[in-house]
Parts: sequence; C-alpha cells; structure tokens
Amino acid sequence: MGSTGSIGRQTLDVLADHHDLFSPCLLVANRNVELLAAQAAKFRPRRVIIGDEAFYDELKRRLDGSGVEVLAGAKAIAEAVTEPEIDTVVTAMVGYSGLEPTINAIKAHKDIALANKETLVVAGELITALVEEHGVHLYPIDSEHGAIYQCLVGEEPASVSRLLLTASGGPFRTRSKEELLHVTKADALHHPNWSMGAKITIDSATMMNKGFEVIEAKWLFGVDADRIEVVVHPQSIIHSMVEFIDGSVKAQLGLPDMHLPIRYALGLPSKRLLSHDRRLSVADYATLTFEQPDMDKFPMLPMAFDAIRRGGNVPCVLNAANEVAVAAFLDDKIGFMDIPAIVQQVVASSPVIQHPTYDDYVATNHEARCRATELIYK
Amino acid sequence: MGSTGSIGRQTLDVLADHHDLFSPCLLVANRNVELLAAQAAKFRPRRVIIGDEAFYDELKRRLDGSGVEVLAGAKAIAEAVTEPEIDTVVTAMVGYSGLEPTINAIKAHKDIALANKETLVVAGELITALVEEHGVHLYPIDSEHGAIYQCLVGEEPASVSRLLLTASGGPFRTRSKEELLHVTKADALHHPNWSMGAKITIDSATMMNKGFEVIEAKWLFGVDADRIEVVVHPQSIIHSMVEFIDGSVKAQLGLPDMHLPIRYALGLPSKRLLSHDRRLSVADYATLTFEQPDMDKFPMLPMAFDAIRRGGNVPCVLNAANEVAVAAFLDDKIGFMDIPAIVQQVVASSPVIQHPTYDDYVATNHEARCRATELIYK
Repeated sequence: MGSTGSIGRQTLDVLADHHDLFSPCLLVANRNVELLAAQAAKFRPRRVIIGDEAFYDELKRRLDGSGVEVLAGAKAIAEAVTEPEIDTVVTAMVGYSGLEPTINAIKAHKDIALANKETLVVAGELITALVEEHGVHLYPIDSEHGAIYQCLVGEEPASVSRLLLTASGGPFRTRSKEELLHVTKADALHHPNWSMGAKITIDSATMMNKGFEVIEAKWLFGVDADRIEVVVHPQSIIHSMVEFIDGSVKAQLGLPDMHLPIRYALGLPSKRLLSHDRRLSVADYATLTFEQPDMDKFPMLPMAFDAIRRGGNVPCVLNAANEVAVAAFLDDKIGFMDIPAIVQQVVASSPVIQHPTYDDYVATNHEARCRATELIYK
Repeated sequence: MGSTGSIGRQTLDVLADHHDLFSPCLLVANRNVELLAAQAAKFRPRRVIIGDEAFYDELKRRLDGSGVEVLAGAKAIAEAVTEPEIDTVVTAMVGYSGLEPTINAIKAHKDIALANKETLVVAGELITALVEEHGVHLYPIDSEHGAIYQCLVGEEPASVSRLLLTASGGPFRTRSKEELLHVTKADALHHPNWSMGAKITIDSATMMNKGFEVIEAKWLFGVDADRIEVVVHPQSIIHSMVEFIDGSVKAQLGLPDMHLPIRYALGLPSKRLLSHDRRLSVADYATLTFEQPDMDKFPMLPMAFDAIRRGGNVPCVLNAANEVAVAAFLDDKIGFMDIPAIVQQVVASSPVIQHPTYDDYVATNHEARCRATELIYK
C-alpha cells in the first residue's frame, strides 16, 4: 500500500532482487497512475488499486489486456487486503490515511511491515491490542526502529534499560532559533542525509518525525517514554541503539539508505536477505558525532514526549494538527515556526479521551484538523 | 584461575555484586600470596591453590584456621578444576600457561569463560574440537569478542558476512615508524584507554594483541581470517562490530571497563546481570573516529593474519616467540621494534606442523621459546 511513494518504490526494488522469495499480489497507490501502471506491468500482481477513483479509467486503459485486475477506491482497498493469498502488507502510505487499511489488514490476519508510523502515533494502543488479539507480527520499516529491532534480537525484554533513538537533527541543526523564523520551504525540504517524501522531510526539519518515532518505539517495543532518549547524530550512520541493564549498549549501523530497513523487515522473522549494494566502509564512518537535542529550538520533540505521557487521544491530536500545519507550510500559507505554534495550540485546546475507541480516533482526528485549519486561515 | 591478576580481581568484583547467583569455590593464583589470601578471606572458597609451590607455606600460614583448604602446584590445579561443584572456570592466567588447565577443565565438562586468549591463539583447533566433543560452552571474556558475541545473539551464522574488530591503536598510533625505534618501556606501558596487565599492554602497543584477537575470533566464531577486518578506533567505545549479508552492521558499545565483558560472559547463556556502574552517556561518545590500521608500522598484525592463514602450529610459534620477546622488552633487554623482528625470525625459521597434537604444541612452544631466547641473548 503506497507502492508509488518513496518507500513503496524501494520496497519493489527489494522484491525485484528477491523474486524467488516474494511475489507481490496487490499494489495500491493513491494518484500516481502512470507509475502504478508501470509497476503492474513489471511485477504482474493479480490486482492493482488506485485510491482516488478519478484515476480509475486511465489506469484501466493503461493496463488493458495485461491480465491485471484494476480497482479503485477505499472500499476496494479495505476488501482486497483480506485476500487469503496475501501474507504480509507493507503499509507505506502517508499520514493518518494509513490507519484504516492497516486495521483491516490486521483483522484479516496479515503480518504488517509498517512504514506508516502515523498508524502507531495516532492509535498505538488500539493497534497493539489488535496485533495481539489476531496473533500477527508488526515489523517496523523505519531505519531507527529496524535498528532497535535488530539490537533486541535474542535479548530478554527484561534486560533492556533504555532505547536510544538517533536523529540526524535535520537541515536546521546548526541554525539559531532566530534563523528558524525565516527558513524557506526549499531549505526545509533539503534533508542532509535521507531522500524521503515531502511530508516526512518537513517532519524531520521540525524534529516532529523524531517525536513520532518516540511514540512509535513505545508501542513497538513496550518501553515507556521516560526510558527512550533522543540522541542527535548528524551522520545518520548509527541508526539507533539499545542500552541494557548491565551497562552494555548495542547499535545498528548502515548507510543512510531505506533499502536496508525494508530488506530487514521483509526478511523477518528469520532471514537476512543478501544484498550486493555497496557495503559500509571505514571511510563512511571515519568520524561519528553525537550531541543532545535542543528541545528549545525544536519544541515538537518535547511536545511528542508530553503527548505520549498523557496518552489517550493526545498523540492523535498532535498528528492531525501536524499534518494540517505541514500541508499549509508546503502550500506557503504559514512560516516554519508556525508549525509548532499551531500544533501546540491545537493540542492545548483539545479534549482528552483516555481510552479512545476507533470512532473516537476518527472524531479526534477530524476535530483537530478543523481546529488547525481554523488557526491557519483565520 | 588467575584470581589476583587484573581480570581475576575484576571477576571477583562482579561475583561480589551478584553473590546471590555465584559462589566461587576455587581461587587459583600464581605467586601473589598476599592478595590470594585476602580474596580467600573475603569470598570463602572451599579451596585455594598457589601455582608456585614456594609460596605454599606462607599461604597456608595466612589462611590458618580459616577453613579454606590450601594447595599448591600445577598438579593440584589440574585436579581441582575437575571437582563436580564447579560449573564454570574463568581462565584469566597469562600467556601459554593457560592452555593445560583449560584443556583439563573442558575435559571435566566445565564451561569456560575465557580471558586467556593465548589458549585459542596457540591451540584453537584442538580447543574447539574438545569443546565440541565435551559439549561445553566457551564464552569470551574480552571486550571485542564479547561485543561480537552480543552482536551475534539471535542471528543465523549464515547471515554473517564479516567481523570488524576494533582496536584502540595503542599508545603509538600517532607515532612515526622511525619514532617507534626509540620508545621506552614506560611509553609502551601507558595505554590510552584500558587498564590491563603488563604483557597485554605491550601486546596492545605492538598490536600483536589485535592480531591474537583475530585468531581468537576465527576459532570462537568460525569465521575465516579473510572475513575479519581490524578497524582502528582510538576512543575504544565501540568494542567491535559484525557485518551481515544484507549490508547491516551491528556494534556493541560501552565504557572501556573490563567489568562489562566479564559481567556479560558470567551471565551467559541467558541472563544480563544488573549493574549500577555509571552508564555510557552522550558525552562519552561525542566524537568517535575510525581509520584503517597501519600494517607497515605494526608488522605484528599482518604476521598474525599470515599465521592463522597458514594454520597448524604457526600461531603457537608466533605466540611463544612473542611471549619471550615481550618479557625481554619488559626486562630492558631489547628495544620495542626488536619484538616484531625477533618474532618474525622465529616464525620464519620454525618447521610447520599442519595438524598438531597436544604434544606437538608443547614441543613447538618449547622450541620457539629457545629460538627466541637465542636470538635475544646471542
């Protein structure tokens, strides 16, 4: 799901390298009909679905005579993920939209390779309960969480003392707080290490992305926020670390290339997939540096810690307000430092629900978006 | 075994912290009768043995009325390690002397926590065969091999592509080859990061220690020398790494403190032991650097790779010649760069035995020592 996005395309690269092990049976994209058709022609899934129904005819035309079934719309997606031939669903769509299809896939007993971290940010409590109830696996496709997963392999949960999430610090690590008032969209979209989609690149610039990863880590690994620490590491070579009760720390390193965590997640639970890509060499890690994050310059980070400590629907509010604010920033409607200001106001003014149902999440998401939109356009 | 040495003392620190889990039943030292008596008074083992029989009377006198049985000599050690109440033998004696008692302990079905790396350097083929034959565990007490062990936990052996052994580079990393001709014993004994015994500190200065660790790693992890790489890392925070076939690298980090690998080895196979020692903090790893080792300035390193590739009794010759040369250097008989020169000559002139028996190792060790001694004193 999300096959034409950055993670989706790289996932298909990995599948192409290991066509003896994997056979994609369903590709889902939102609007990029041209690429989706090309992917279908190459990978020959049984079925493709375009989320936006306006593109159905064009997709149908492009795949005419190919033997690939063409569908469109959210309902088709919700049904298609329940097909028995599917073992694993890669959730690589953007933002809140990942929540519903992921829930459907879990209920249909599919393992989830989760690239859509917002799913856990918004509804981590609900998702982890469903994962347990339906006995499926939830594998992270995220370089930090993939790193932590690797460090935890073979270790007892009771041995873990802290998770150390590394952060590049984004494009504005060395800018002053004052300078951040005047950075442009182009500045924010220029990530120093990672090539990613626009939404996550802006989230990296505000460090909201790292805050989301703290929340994601709490749910994936069952570790409370006060045992999760963010460490800024500008070279993005160490992808995260785990500290154990004996004082030992384990880390996972690699080139900053999303193929690596994708390959790892797809091989789970038991197999590492051979890669012929360039290996990490001493020159790549000749100098690695680490520093504490600046919580004052990047207020989204303490906001995320606060949201996960408060729990309930608070992270859902945080995510919804952030999605709207980031979209407005990308649309040149607000400045960079307006993003945290708006999110802060929405979070402060939203009612807290301690144990939200799915419907509560839907309502919370809707209301927080309205509030954020009001703040931006009023 | 070796309870009064650096590793022995730190092992007893760990046992003292976890007296609910461990009960030392035998302490063995070579000559340090005063400390051995103090350790016996504190830990109340059933028995203590002093290797050098000349110290028996004094030890006996010091422990008079304590209820601790006092023995002396190699034969007593060989018998004592077979006692049924012993589960694990920590081999922390220095050099070649570790070989025989370790073999006895394995034959008596004891797990081995191996700090005496020379055991595997000299007779890795024999030891690993005995370990398999007698179904015992061989746990490394060495920060590098402990690190690799941790990185391999839960991983398939077939997933491993390379071992990356980190090396501080020792006290002479930044000296020129010319300067090395004139360094003193005091210079060589001043290790930048680790507090260790004299023999291993000199081995670190020549990088023979790292060469031995390559050989040790080959036997412990079943990885050939051409898949073992040495990486110089002056801060000694990353204690070693493993590269996997998917391009991912795992590393273990910690303060340079031998309590850490000792604690890890003693907790194996399943438990990490809680420590209240100071934790690694961002300030400790603010800047980590890595570089290729200088094989020209440190010829012992390529000699070790060459010895393990040639196999048979060659590493035994290397070790024996090195022990004699290092002792002569510590005794002010030769210069620092004479150590590799002498070892090189002994290795070049010794006959190769491809599959040595225990007696072959004994003879090889004896002959190589004679040859080295001749070169030094003639």
